[in-house]
Amino acid sequence: MRTTHGVVETPAFMPVGTQGAVKALTHRDLESIGAEILLSNTYHLYLRPGDDLIARRGGLHAFIGWPRPILTDSGGYQVFSLAARRTIDEQGAHFRSHLDGSAHLLTPEKATDIQAQLGSDIAMVLDECLAHPATPDGREVARASMQRTLRWARRARDRFLALREGPVPGVIVSNAGQAQFGIVQGSVFPDLREESARQTVEMGFEAYAIGGLSVGEPADVMYEMVARTAPCLPGDRPRYLMGTGTPADLVESVARGIDLFDCVLPTRNARNGQLFTSEGRINIRNARYAEDDRPPDEHCTCYTCRTCSRAYLRHLHVVGEMNASTLNTLHNLHFYLDTLRRIREAITFRRFDGLRLALHQSLSRQPHDS
Amino acid sequence: MRTTHGVVETPAFMPVGTQGAVKALTHRDLESIGAEILLSNTYHLYLRPGDDLIARRGGLHAFIGWPRPILTDSGGYQVFSLAARRTIDEQGAHFRSHLDGSAHLLTPEKATDIQAQLGSDIAMVLDECLAHPATPDGREVARASMQRTLRWARRARDRFLALREGPVPGVIVSNAGQAQFGIVQGSVFPDLREESARQTVEMGFEAYAIGGLSVGEPADVMYEMVARTAPCLPGDRPRYLMGTGTPADLVESVARGIDLFDCVLPTRNARNGQLFTSEGRINIRNARYAEDDRPPDEHCTCYTCRTCSRAYLRHLHVVGEMNASTLNTLHNLHFYLDTLRRIREAITFRRFDGLRLALHQSLSRQPHDS
Repeated sequence: MRTTHGVVETPAFMPVGTQGAVKALTHRDLESIGAEILLSNTYHLYLRPGDDLIARRGGLHAFIGWPRPILTDSGGYQVFSLAARRTIDEQGAHFRSHLDGSAHLLTPEKATDIQAQLGSDIAMVLDECLAHPATPDGREVARASMQRTLRWARRARDRFLALREGPVPGVIVSNAGQAQFGIVQGSVFPDLREESARQTVEMGFEAYAIGGLSVGEPADVMYEMVARTAPCLPGDRPRYLMGTGTPADLVESVARGIDLFDCVLPTRNARNGQLFTSEGRINIRNARYAEDDRPPDEHCTCYTCRTCSRAYLRHLHVVGEMNASTLNTLHNLHFYLDTLRRIREAITFRRFDGLRLALHQSLSRQPHDS
Repeated sequence: MRTTHGVVETPAFMPVGTQGAVKALTHRDLESIGAEILLSNTYHLYLRPGDDLIARRGGLHAFIGWPRPILTDSGGYQVFSLAARRTIDEQGAHFRSHLDGSAHLLTPEKATDIQAQLGSDIAMVLDECLAHPATPDGREVARASMQRTLRWARRARDRFLALREGPVPGVIVSNAGQAQFGIVQGSVFPDLREESARQTVEMGFEAYAIGGLSVGEPADVMYEMVARTAPCLPGDRPRYLMGTGTPADLVESVARGIDLFDCVLPTRNARNGQLFTSEGRINIRNARYAEDDRPPDEHCTCYTCRTCSRAYLRHLHVVGEMNASTLNTLHNLHFYLDTLRRIREAITFRRFDGLRLALHQSLSRQPHDS
């Protein structure tokens, strides 16, 4: 995948740098594990320090000192999950900041403008995110929401093209080569997914994402939705599955045609002491590791596994040292990026099915720790 | 200074790794700024994870994965400053853990045993730490305390030599080449300091430290005590000024014969957003830095200054990202280590007086921020 800040080998996993930094890591930590692209959150950056301030600094790359590709989300997901007193109407999402209660309105145009000012390499359209439908009228709710997302996508695309055409008062375009991805919705209903994909592709975005999954539905439902949706998206463009998932989800989604992933799982779990290993997940807080001199994962080549024992990591976690988060996050992200690296290699050498089986056999083992 | 884990160029500053890690840094961060020796706190490691556990792992170097020199304090200072319900008698310090209230007794022998099990390169004797005397009978209190410290030093040395002689039941000697430093006390009274130095040197430690300063006395009193004490210590051994200080304190103490320093100032202040720079101290939280694209210190070559603007660091600090602590700590420790590097170079080329003046001129500038 080519962007104005360089090439990304796909399938790729994007570490989440919510507020312009991956929690507990420095950029050189990220570079050391081979991260090629970062995801950053429009909602958080819009509130603090503000997209105006970032645009005045020359855009997000310059502001945070990260010279490689950046994808920004639309801010919608955080508005739906984090903001206070939100109401959605055709215009957009009205909400109050979770920080100071100030009132805001996020429209498809506004989400496009903010991301233009941030100057990410890839901007996402504002979509409506539904929880996994559990109600009898779930299908009708999903259809209406999917159709609103299509109308919003049209507005977002129009705004994006207007910004590309020429100056729009009050908006600094920080990255003239920004791409915009459309998002397929439709909940767990294959026909809605297909309709959403068809109409979104008709609008002619640079590429496409699948949204509204990993929101509580069973894994096999998610896989089925991915399998039904991915073939409706152009084969010559990256397909991005938003907010997913476990290592098993990644390999299964690649098998179904996905090229791009993001998820807070490796970073958030790291801060809680949960480590992904080739033998399953372990929680380093567990007393059984107090005198365990082995590295977290004996097959891992990351800095943490090369230099730290489980006993030391457990000690750091138990006494509350911040660098426990750093060391755990380094390992988990390395595990994710390395899994994608192995997947890419297997695809190149036409061994993907073998790797898929091998990964499942190790990943599906009962975790050691709850 | 030669140790069993390598050579340390002096004068040297030791970053404080209280619980076996410098707060917010990984060991490779420390290596990247040229740290040659680490200080670790016996009190904390004794309580968690315990010196027995560390001895079973092969000692502190093996446990934390730091192959270079380590100095451990005796634990006394933390007992005096941190522990609950402590009482001191001739035997030692009775106290309760600040973590779980459990009862403990730290004697000169016990402090020696714990450090033998930790296997640091340099162990410190247990001394009694007094606050800066403000009472009319301060001199008599200081004399009695200094004399108790001498009796404790004798016991600590006897224990150390016994451990060196042969096996002592219940104590694993993790580092056969460990050195033990005596500590000069005597508060702010030059004659007590001189007497303490003379009698401590008579006991024949590998080297000597000056304790009980930086405890609230004016800087000129501290400098005077250092000036009176350092000449009483052997010129062919490192002289260690414990718990000091500001960059100005370091250069003034080197001028008076000090070779070794430790202090939490650069690391603790970093976590509060205060940065040491060649133009004075700045607090990165200050609103004036919100749109300041300059690095923290335009003359600094550290990773933070090479890659981060004040605006970005302020953002990270304000939103509460952990890596703000990492980036600030990297800078402050680099500033300290670089200051010592410049001092060593100036001494080598007989330009120390010029550097001392230049450092004072820049360091004594009014800080930008409160």
